[in-house]
Amino acid sequence: MANTYNPVTPELVKTLRGIVGPGNVFTDADKLETYSHDETDASEYGHNPEVVVLPLTAEQVAAVVKLANKEHVPITPRGAGSGLSGGAIPEHGGIVISLEKMNRLLELDKANMVAVVEAGIVTNDLANAVQAEGLFFAGYPMSLQTCVIGGNIAENAGGGKAVKYGVTGRYILGLEMVTPQGEIVQLGGKLVKDVSGYDLKSLIVGSEGTLGIVTKAIVKLIGYPATKSDLLVLFKTPKEAIDVVPVVLSRGLTPTSIEFMDQLSVITSCKYLNESLPYENAGAMLLIELDGTNAAQIEMDLIETGKLCEAHGAQEVYVAEDKNNIERIWRVRRDIAEAFKVFSPIQSLEDIVVPISRIPEVIPELERLGKKYNVQIPCYGHAGDGNLHATLVKNPDMSIEEWKKNEVQCLEELYRIVGSFGGKISGEHGIGIKRRGYLKALINPVELELMRAIKKAWDPNNIMNPGKIFE
Amino acid sequence: MANTYNPVTPELVKTLRGIVGPGNVFTDADKLETYSHDETDASEYGHNPEVVVLPLTAEQVAAVVKLANKEHVPITPRGAGSGLSGGAIPEHGGIVISLEKMNRLLELDKANMVAVVEAGIVTNDLANAVQAEGLFFAGYPMSLQTCVIGGNIAENAGGGKAVKYGVTGRYILGLEMVTPQGEIVQLGGKLVKDVSGYDLKSLIVGSEGTLGIVTKAIVKLIGYPATKSDLLVLFKTPKEAIDVVPVVLSRGLTPTSIEFMDQLSVITSCKYLNESLPYENAGAMLLIELDGTNAAQIEMDLIETGKLCEAHGAQEVYVAEDKNNIERIWRVRRDIAEAFKVFSPIQSLEDIVVPISRIPEVIPELERLGKKYNVQIPCYGHAGDGNLHATLVKNPDMSIEEWKKNEVQCLEELYRIVGSFGGKISGEHGIGIKRRGYLKALINPVELELMRAIKKAWDPNNIMNPGKIFE
Repeated sequence: MANTYNPVTPELVKTLRGIVGPGNVFTDADKLETYSHDETDASEYGHNPEVVVLPLTAEQVAAVVKLANKEHVPITPRGAGSGLSGGAIPEHGGIVISLEKMNRLLELDKANMVAVVEAGIVTNDLANAVQAEGLFFAGYPMSLQTCVIGGNIAENAGGGKAVKYGVTGRYILGLEMVTPQGEIVQLGGKLVKDVSGYDLKSLIVGSEGTLGIVTKAIVKLIGYPATKSDLLVLFKTPKEAIDVVPVVLSRGLTPTSIEFMDQLSVITSCKYLNESLPYENAGAMLLIELDGTNAAQIEMDLIETGKLCEAHGAQEVYVAEDKNNIERIWRVRRDIAEAFKVFSPIQSLEDIVVPISRIPEVIPELERLGKKYNVQIPCYGHAGDGNLHATLVKNPDMSIEEWKKNEVQCLEELYRIVGSFGGKISGEHGIGIKRRGYLKALINPVELELMRAIKKAWDPNNIMNPGKIFE
Repeated sequence: MANTYNPVTPELVKTLRGIVGPGNVFTDADKLETYSHDETDASEYGHNPEVVVLPLTAEQVAAVVKLANKEHVPITPRGAGSGLSGGAIPEHGGIVISLEKMNRLLELDKANMVAVVEAGIVTNDLANAVQAEGLFFAGYPMSLQTCVIGGNIAENAGGGKAVKYGVTGRYILGLEMVTPQGEIVQLGGKLVKDVSGYDLKSLIVGSEGTLGIVTKAIVKLIGYPATKSDLLVLFKTPKEAIDVVPVVLSRGLTPTSIEFMDQLSVITSCKYLNESLPYENAGAMLLIELDGTNAAQIEMDLIETGKLCEAHGAQEVYVAEDKNNIERIWRVRRDIAEAFKVFSPIQSLEDIVVPISRIPEVIPELERLGKKYNVQIPCYGHAGDGNLHATLVKNPDMSIEEWKKNEVQCLEELYRIVGSFGGKISGEHGIGIKRRGYLKALINPVELELMRAIKKAWDPNNIMNPGKIFE
């Protein structure tokens, strides 16, 4: 696929102003900088676009995409810019299409238990609006308060509730999308079953904006689970903690979350928060949340879960049923990344995913790699999903040059290990720019060729978010 | 795409014998007839293959596919032949590849709660094997006892438990597939989250064998729900019955099934079974099943569901908690199709799906169409999913010629109505041969073109199950 594009000319900018209105096209340096990065390290991955457009309708998006094809200018779709793999970075310049003004809840259809939203709606706004009606949007990323639904779809975002509720894709019943050639298409509908041709909407979910720009989504809602309770369970070793996970799940218990934190993560986050969880002697912790509509049932499940943990090697089981204590514990979990940023702002937040049973084997490998490459690698994440945010943290005394070299080597080795365990390099953050160089080495070449064939067939000019996923 | 193929020559048969062994290649008339049809009407859709091969390994499948490409001979993959849309019919002759000998449970991985199976395993054999370990395969078609997992994947099969558990696709974590060009590829893994490139496995699910031959699957298991209870709820009208569905679901209750039966369906099935359900005056019934691990919880949910039904227009609510009564009621539901076959063997079993709230509008349209085209159209199916098996049944006094003409016109009109309600023409049976002529008229041409582009990119010789989905 060709990667030489034409520059954005003043004529093109003028045409764009005609399409989306003069107030929705930006070329000033400040704005270009704002749209040059996401939540990955801007100094490493950032790149300015040549122009930013803020369309108001799918028709405007389609017109911009048609124009980009005609002029051979690359397009980068953008949601909230809260991504962690560089998916919204305009690496080849060109046009950033930000969906931020297409942020409306168009319809809350209670009879069908679906919401119809524009792609730029903040996920939290959607969640709050439906909660007011006793409904629940269960595709629930950790960055809920900033991220938008279009980005969640692009990355098939997961989060803390995926053990019970699955990830974003499960809740996407329909999509309106502008194709890479600038056609508007409706996929799926207010339908919970549909085999009328290929399931294109599931292909779009997780395709990182490389196969089109989602402009609208029909999302499935469920009843709001009014009750929740948490267990904080202490184990001597990570292995003992992880071994409990299938025991609980196979008993038919369906916790909302089974979060894992190793000792280093807990200690660092507690120090940062000036919090004191009971972590002495615990080599690992599980934070298990149960939710539901029926308090008595949650109580029963909670007791059963606690007993199973105790019978399978837990040192201590703490129950948190009141809001304050639940929030205290979750804050420790949520702020691990932030705590390590205070320790050292230079780090690589990883997103490996392995079969759940292999997690105990991953932990000593992380320790070994940390020593070998002189980095700290705290490990925490979604044990119930096998999805671990092992994070390479630069030691403060290491030079930037050494860090960069070590980071690459350490990641290559880590990903090879993950692959040998039957795992993959991204569970919920995506490949984007950050991991594309590694994907090629770790994925079967036939599979990669099948992916590329779709991309090429749909986007022969390679103008739709080029450089993401594929090199 | 070219649709003229080369004939299967004696040399080709000889080569096939070399690949899969002489005992696994058949060209005798009896065998060819056996593999000429599925559960659709053989006289209308049946077509003999030229040769049938029964491979034992993915490598053998791959070798056959490579050969077919080289010789430009079409391939039709086949599971149990229990499909309802003609997906396994070798319309262009050529080679049928039956997966029937690749029927092993390869691994039951309790720690990761997955099973690894060959594509030809009978779904029921899988279900029984995992149940013996306290586990549950929740992708559960109604034809469980005959169908195989490969066919379930090809059609993204649904069934009676989809309200709570979703359809087949949700439980497919990984696939081994032979591509249309004869390469073996592994997609996904023992992973519950994965955004490492496009989600090709979700694209394969429901693609009706047109994008490759699935040879192996990694399926997700959950804890076996030991307790179940059923409610049979009588309503005066279909509208009142359907209106209860979102009331129940939005309360956070998650029934396993919410099955709908109209009066004609119940009466016909009861007559056929010599059964006497309490159906007097009831214009429609819901059969609601709840399951779980905790009998006390099921009891509570059952009571709440019953009360909600009563508060929203139910005439009567009957509880069935013992196995015998549950089976009695379900038999009436399951045998509706069979009962109408006794009444008139010539019929067209449909699989429309609409937003749940639109079901009450579908019912009078079915009555109108029945009168207009002189056919009976009983309506039953999965109300909790909006998926209705409205069935056109030939009146015994109608000539075959008139039936054929009326069937086509009636389906065209029915599908147009379904489309106008935001519905689709297949929820779980697929397009296959039977509905491809209608799909073109009812789907957005851009969407159809996106589907065809994938097919063409992956299968440029159009040898993989040609003529299915697309004309």
